Amino acid sequence: MTNLPEPLMQLAAVLGKLPGIGPRSAERLALFLAQRDIEEVRQMATSIIAARERIATCKICGALCDGGHCSICSNPRRDSGLLCVVETAVDVLRIEKAGAFSGLYHVLGGRLSPLQGVEPEDLRISELEARLEGGKVREVVLALCSDVEGDATSYYLARRLAPRGVKITRIAHGLPAGSGLEFADELTLARALEGRREINNAT
Amino acid sequence: MTNLPEPLMQLAAVLGKLPGIGPRSAERLALFLAQRDIEEVRQMATSIIAARERIATCKICGALCDGGHCSICSNPRRDSGLLCVVETAVDVLRIEKAGAFSGLYHVLGGRLSPLQGVEPEDLRISELEARLEGGKVREVVLALCSDVEGDATSYYLARRLAPRGVKITRIAHGLPAGSGLEFADELTLARALEGRREINNAT
Repeated sequence: MTNLPEPLMQLAAVLGKLPGIGPRSAERLALFLAQRDIEEVRQMATSIIAARERIATCKICGALCDGGHCSICSNPRRDSGLLCVVETAVDVLRIEKAGAFSGLYHVLGGRLSPLQGVEPEDLRISELEARLEGGKVREVVLALCSDVEGDATSYYLARRLAPRGVKITRIAHGLPAGSGLEFADELTLARALEGRREINNAT
Repeated sequence: MTNLPEPLMQLAAVLGKLPGIGPRSAERLALFLAQRDIEEVRQMATSIIAARERIATCKICGALCDGGHCSICSNPRRDSGLLCVVETAVDVLRIEKAGAFSGLYHVLGGRLSPLQGVEPEDLRISELEARLEGGKVREVVLALCSDVEGDATSYYLARRLAPRGVKITRIAHGLPAGSGLEFADELTLARALEGRREINNAT
């Protein structure tokens, strides 16, 4: 609707900044809020702030938690010899959802990007090195994005951590589960071929 | 994701109360906000409150505006002899968007619903009568929903306003524009037949 009263337009503009909320959805949400009681809207906004304030990052790995150490770092049943390096705190949740990793995490907080001014010292790399100090970690699994910057970050980390004698691996890139060759782009196919593994009939 | 930290779940629960935001979208929005700076989230929530506080309802018609009288009521070029009665303030915006009405509006604030305890005195009916007092209004157009409660409200209003000698009409119900018989339900078809109009070749 073009001729919305100005505060409604403003409300829609704020809501439109959220991901996945297009102009029409923003307008719908603004109209919804405009029809709610002011007190209700105020309460809703306040509980958004309150919840956001309670979200902290784990002092050890950098994952999202509600203060202090996260439930993964403080779980004695996780394999502390295995450290998975990810870009963001949300990546931890994604891998946890897959349920296929039993080690600990380390959130880098981004990836190297000279163009955007992200240098090694802007990432949590020295914290990662400090965690390797004790000698308990036997393998570092790099689970970064597979684009140019993610690749560069992976190679940088592999080179920087090499002198420590820890095993450094990278998660596999190839065909997505349940997908065939017809849907794979060239780069994915090239990666899938590069990463081919022998089928061992004995096991 | 099942094992989100508790404040994130709480954030998702608040966002999930918005219309059109399902559990997955709510989770996505919560993760988005969790990754933003606290200050940014606080500012966003505050501007939602500020915008909502600036939205007022027109003292005359009840439409949404930014204080005092709305731009429709204060527009001398609108036909003040024609009054369109709608249920909600958002309905005004919908009809304005269609651009086919040049009169003024009156927002009822709902419809009669004995089951939900909405009685005539809960709606802005006496305000509507007061507006008819001056004798300037020659036609009241009822543009309420066409379900059982909307119908009942329309008939109630028609009966209550009848002694005032003002012409009372109801917007047409029939086939949606651009749609054929195959997509119309039985009730819509029955209404469309009832509301049939003579095609006058002379005009």
